[in-house]
Amino acid sequence: MKVNVNPVKGMRDFLPNEKEIRDYVETIIINTYKQNGFQLIETPVVENIERLLGSKGGENLKLIYKIMKRGEKLDLTRDNLNEVDLADLGLRYDLTVPLSRFYCNNKSKLLPVFKSLQVGNVFRAERAQKGRYRSFKQCDIDIIGEPSKTAEIELIITTAKALTALNVSNFSFRINDRRILKNVVLSCGFNENNFESVCITLDKLDKIGMDGVEKELIKKDFNKENINNIISALKEINLKGTECLTTYGVEKEVAENVSSIISIVKEFSKGKFEIKFDFTLVRGMGYYTGTIFEISYKDLGYSIGGGGRYDEMIGNFIGEKIPAIGFSIGFERLVNELIEENFKVPNLEKGVLLYDDKSDNLSCVLSKAEELRNNGFSITLYKKAKKIGKQLNQLKSFGFTKFAIFENDDTKMKNLD
Amino acid sequence: MKVNVNPVKGMRDFLPNEKEIRDYVETIIINTYKQNGFQLIETPVVENIERLLGSKGGENLKLIYKIMKRGEKLDLTRDNLNEVDLADLGLRYDLTVPLSRFYCNNKSKLLPVFKSLQVGNVFRAERAQKGRYRSFKQCDIDIIGEPSKTAEIELIITTAKALTALNVSNFSFRINDRRILKNVVLSCGFNENNFESVCITLDKLDKIGMDGVEKELIKKDFNKENINNIISALKEINLKGTECLTTYGVEKEVAENVSSIISIVKEFSKGKFEIKFDFTLVRGMGYYTGTIFEISYKDLGYSIGGGGRYDEMIGNFIGEKIPAIGFSIGFERLVNELIEENFKVPNLEKGVLLYDDKSDNLSCVLSKAEELRNNGFSITLYKKAKKIGKQLNQLKSFGFTKFAIFENDDTKMKNLD
Repeated sequence: MKVNVNPVKGMRDFLPNEKEIRDYVETIIINTYKQNGFQLIETPVVENIERLLGSKGGENLKLIYKIMKRGEKLDLTRDNLNEVDLADLGLRYDLTVPLSRFYCNNKSKLLPVFKSLQVGNVFRAERAQKGRYRSFKQCDIDIIGEPSKTAEIELIITTAKALTALNVSNFSFRINDRRILKNVVLSCGFNENNFESVCITLDKLDKIGMDGVEKELIKKDFNKENINNIISALKEINLKGTECLTTYGVEKEVAENVSSIISIVKEFSKGKFEIKFDFTLVRGMGYYTGTIFEISYKDLGYSIGGGGRYDEMIGNFIGEKIPAIGFSIGFERLVNELIEENFKVPNLEKGVLLYDDKSDNLSCVLSKAEELRNNGFSITLYKKAKKIGKQLNQLKSFGFTKFAIFENDDTKMKNLD
Repeated sequence: MKVNVNPVKGMRDFLPNEKEIRDYVETIIINTYKQNGFQLIETPVVENIERLLGSKGGENLKLIYKIMKRGEKLDLTRDNLNEVDLADLGLRYDLTVPLSRFYCNNKSKLLPVFKSLQVGNVFRAERAQKGRYRSFKQCDIDIIGEPSKTAEIELIITTAKALTALNVSNFSFRINDRRILKNVVLSCGFNENNFESVCITLDKLDKIGMDGVEKELIKKDFNKENINNIISALKEINLKGTECLTTYGVEKEVAENVSSIISIVKEFSKGKFEIKFDFTLVRGMGYYTGTIFEISYKDLGYSIGGGGRYDEMIGNFIGEKIPAIGFSIGFERLVNELIEENFKVPNLEKGVLLYDDKSDNLSCVLSKAEELRNNGFSITLYKKAKKIGKQLNQLKSFGFTKFAIFENDDTKMKNLD
């Protein structure tokens, strides 16, 4: 009987070579973050379904994998069954909701300002398409308990360091603030109910241009005057930056906060990377409350990371308002880009010790392998094939760089080339 | 609104200290395995539900977390709904089933004898009890494509090396063969249908003793003569080891295979660890077909690892018989033991740079932190509290070993003690 042996739709098997690159990138990111004072934690991939559905995850809530109740709790005999009756658990769709729960659960065992580092898989039942996965890795740093801009600045410069440690350059940060978005949009005459819809269109500015934005807003049947207002606001903000925001009802403090973050980060970066204010940066999650940011990389049409302030989420759990902010590296996109650029894991020497299966000297072969390992080689035992040339070529194609053929005490490693 | 912030039942949050130990142990194990020629791969935690339910996972099949179908595929209006109609996916209960699928899916891209290393979480909806988790980590090495005892020997000695690298001693291996179990049990008069039930009782010998085994078999209402036969077989095998197995219908080759593995491993171990034949070793998985083994550690009543041959599983996927064997370290039990023994991660120096929030010199603070990091410290930025003594004590209790208070170019690290 033959059965389907593909991984589940949208999820992936990782072969040794790709896994090696992924692990190397992950290690560099983790080490950089640790070096900068972030502490690695771990949360389960499974969360209670009410907790997931009750979070402000925007569109992601529709993409949650729900886990069925088990045993007696699963009642299939009821009338008018609906999904929610049948599930008690779900797979997490991000790392921020679990982190907030983690923080509330372990608050007394953490430093008052907690700098968290979390790396793990998240799951979204997205429509399958190239480069979009249903299980993917995120690398998040978060600072919980720090209301001031220090948190924003630390997250941005530490993320820049992680990218630099991977020899990634040509990246830049875009920054905005949800409060700025809201004030400007409302001051143009739109009402609260249309805010999200207007934002979704503004978000497309770099793809569809000013004309495209205008057309889409007209198509959405918004008031013509409001549309004119927002277009002229866009143009003015584009030109003058954070300077002009107060004329659109933005608090001075909020505008200054963004411009101060930008100037301190610029001073630190010494031109090695860019950071700029981008009024059309929106970000999908409903839980953001203040600063939001994204990393652009080269001329890719998508960001390789992003994040923002979510000062309300923890309060929803424990009824005590605690400021929080996070930055997530989109691991999959970053790794895919690095692989496209032919990224190599440095300095990996892998050796193979070939031995003759017919000989009754397995103990000696094992001892010889140990000896070679003690000389610093990573050694695989492999049975010698009849056609040794063909076998050596095969081994080379699998990334081995050294080989030895077991003979006696004189067995020496040679280069595979 | 206050909500439940505990992790899902049977699953755990890992705080920074415990996470550090876990990651250290995992890294040592992975590096040892890689050094010995095993290649790290990764498979998704989610698998098709039919694939999971169709595997011979014994009792574990009852413990699978099932994921509900999504969108139109979820039909709740049907009559006589049952669980299987509603789920299309599930969480894996071990790493062996995904590995077999992985191998079949990627066979052409792997070496003919594939030495796999896989580390990941598996999920079982067990009844919650101390030390038993519903999400736990396994570290598996497997050799696929090697029918001979070389595979058994490599797995055993490599696992021993991983434990030794963690300074774990006092461990020993027990080895048996499913074919030996079967031949002996059947030769005593039991029939095929009762094989599993007899094995479950034999497995308890070290807990309930020979009398206990006899009583339980009587209670299970087996034929008195068969019970006498198996008890006398137990006693003889206990005394004479593999020597007497052929008198119970075991093939000479099978008996010699086990004793040869034992003698080669002993020669290699030079007395650093024990390995012995144990006829009462059973192991629960239905998919084992030949050699099986477990690691005992000190006088713990449970094993900290185990595995065996599963020469049929891959054949079930692709209709071509391919030999396979695996060894899994029970990561949770091992780590829990190490933590009980007060295991310390070597050589971790963590520093904190305290700065004054009121000062308008964040850029200088950031530069100073960079300077200290470049001197080899891991540095966390932290705002200086009014009561500095109390704050230093708190930081020390969180594992920081060095501190500095930002002043100017002279800022120096001091010991926290």
